[in-house]
Amino acid sequence: MQFSRRAWLATGSLLFAVPTVTQAVVADDPLPGWAPGEVKQRLLQFVEQATREGGAGFIPVAERIAVFDNDGTLWPENPVPFQAAFALDTLRGRVADHPEWQADPHVQAALAGDVPALLANQHAGLLRLLALTHQGLTVAEFQARVEKWLQTARHPRFERRYDECVYQPMLELLAHLRSRGFQTWIVSGGGADFMRVWSERVYGIAPQHVIGSHGRVKFEMRDGRPRLVKTLDHLFVDDREGKPAGIHQFIGRQPVLAFGNSDGDKAMLEYTTIDNPRPSLGVILHHTDADREYAYDAQPKSSGKLVEALADAPQRGWLVVDFRRDFRSLFPAPRQ
Amino acid sequence: MQFSRRAWLATGSLLFAVPTVTQAVVADDPLPGWAPGEVKQRLLQFVEQATREGGAGFIPVAERIAVFDNDGTLWPENPVPFQAAFALDTLRGRVADHPEWQADPHVQAALAGDVPALLANQHAGLLRLLALTHQGLTVAEFQARVEKWLQTARHPRFERRYDECVYQPMLELLAHLRSRGFQTWIVSGGGADFMRVWSERVYGIAPQHVIGSHGRVKFEMRDGRPRLVKTLDHLFVDDREGKPAGIHQFIGRQPVLAFGNSDGDKAMLEYTTIDNPRPSLGVILHHTDADREYAYDAQPKSSGKLVEALADAPQRGWLVVDFRRDFRSLFPAPRQ
Repeated sequence: MQFSRRAWLATGSLLFAVPTVTQAVVADDPLPGWAPGEVKQRLLQFVEQATREGGAGFIPVAERIAVFDNDGTLWPENPVPFQAAFALDTLRGRVADHPEWQADPHVQAALAGDVPALLANQHAGLLRLLALTHQGLTVAEFQARVEKWLQTARHPRFERRYDECVYQPMLELLAHLRSRGFQTWIVSGGGADFMRVWSERVYGIAPQHVIGSHGRVKFEMRDGRPRLVKTLDHLFVDDREGKPAGIHQFIGRQPVLAFGNSDGDKAMLEYTTIDNPRPSLGVILHHTDADREYAYDAQPKSSGKLVEALADAPQRGWLVVDFRRDFRSLFPAPRQ
Repeated sequence: MQFSRRAWLATGSLLFAVPTVTQAVVADDPLPGWAPGEVKQRLLQFVEQATREGGAGFIPVAERIAVFDNDGTLWPENPVPFQAAFALDTLRGRVADHPEWQADPHVQAALAGDVPALLANQHAGLLRLLALTHQGLTVAEFQARVEKWLQTARHPRFERRYDECVYQPMLELLAHLRSRGFQTWIVSGGGADFMRVWSERVYGIAPQHVIGSHGRVKFEMRDGRPRLVKTLDHLFVDDREGKPAGIHQFIGRQPVLAFGNSDGDKAMLEYTTIDNPRPSLGVILHHTDADREYAYDAQPKSSGKLVEALADAPQRGWLVVDFRRDFRSLFPAPRQ
């Protein structure tokens, strides 16, 4: 950034002679992974106006709250949400030590990859899977397991670490927003303790800006040392109507920008954009690119159903990002 | 600071000749409301060392998390916690419209100011009082009531607005910590929605840094407009073992500084100072000044019992602030 600005100044006279977008200007683009077009322009415009004091679009710094769904918005949710992949891998590894689990129909469904069975009866199977793989551990033990899994597991299609399957255009948008005084928050149905392991490293989003599903942790002194033990008590599912509730509980302030990709984000988009005394923007990422990633809306293979929110988008003024059209890049280069 | 350092350099030889604190240094004192002494020195030292890169006391900015109890730590908790005064005033105002409430023994106890009766049977009366005064309102309605109450109610002893009864030395400490890159959080048994009305204006603590007791809010669209409705479902009581649990849920990171005044803060002090890979400091405010404020520990009149935490302080290395000795000032000058 610095360098290109210097280059721009140094070659000013040359640039003024060139009527089209030059390489130097493109190099200064905060969103190079976004294709030029209306979507990119509206995103940049919203941010620019939010920071222009005295303008109609101005938003005081304290109120520049931007909330992002995670699965399907910042990283893929296929072939299954990544935390489900973690839970399944963990279950497979632990079944050997717990042969009695084999008789559990929920465990059988999980090991068979029978997602509909896991989601039947109000997600009874999924909750059982969470109980077997997430509950009773201390937070530190759980997070060490997630970290170890990230180091060894690879995404079946992209053949890279799961935490390297993150959308490059979204990383750029997060960084651009923060550079303009926005707070970037995750508001996801995924587990808070799961996401906090890597959210700061991968997205630049600190643990205290991660709102996710969670059971209550239990504090206890064990052998004179403090421990936080994970439970599923008072489980809070941070999805659908839970999202604005979670936003209120954790932030206590109406966001001005909400970004999601499914009907699970509809309530969050409504809460952000309806009756907001500040300028606001709702954005939906529509997965339209089976070649580079996945294409789904009405009938997703796992999570991410998008019907109602997409239908409401025009009347609500929500911006719809077309993955194929608007995302010029996919993932960042893998780390060495 | 800048100025005094320059002054110090300029007048170095003079200063070395003067054994006591000079005027120039006092004028630049970030904590003028704190009396000189060991407590003030340890607080300043902790902060100074946390910011000195390469030193043994250094703490990276992202981990400079400081957590503060509210009732009895940032403002008084007598003659009753201020939120209880709000609830009682609200109840009195509403009983006229609800004559049937008169028959409720909990309401009778509240109106008679019978605190032990309200706290009996696992706080059944207090919960009933909360239900009658906090539940079913939208968050916006509730917060408007709190705001209105603050404007009209006066503290019976100090005869000023409740939100002007805040400890000046603590305001200075909060500001000093923030000027050194610390995040200042409230972790209080009080209601989050109650505190967020005034925490930013009074303490400079934004709503998203307020952790308090709360029931789940319910999001609903009413006449096409989003509403958050307060409930007491899944009530989370942010006290005792709930404090470290709340800290984990909201911050996801072990604090380095914890400041409380009662046994309700003991678990938070333990969580902050035991097994912390970073330098840490636990502080207890001991109310010892009946002349200027209140004096209590083992037998408080309302809340704020302080026995176990005080007994543990020497072995844990927790700093004990003596209100009478260490607080040179009490409240800020009232606003005009």
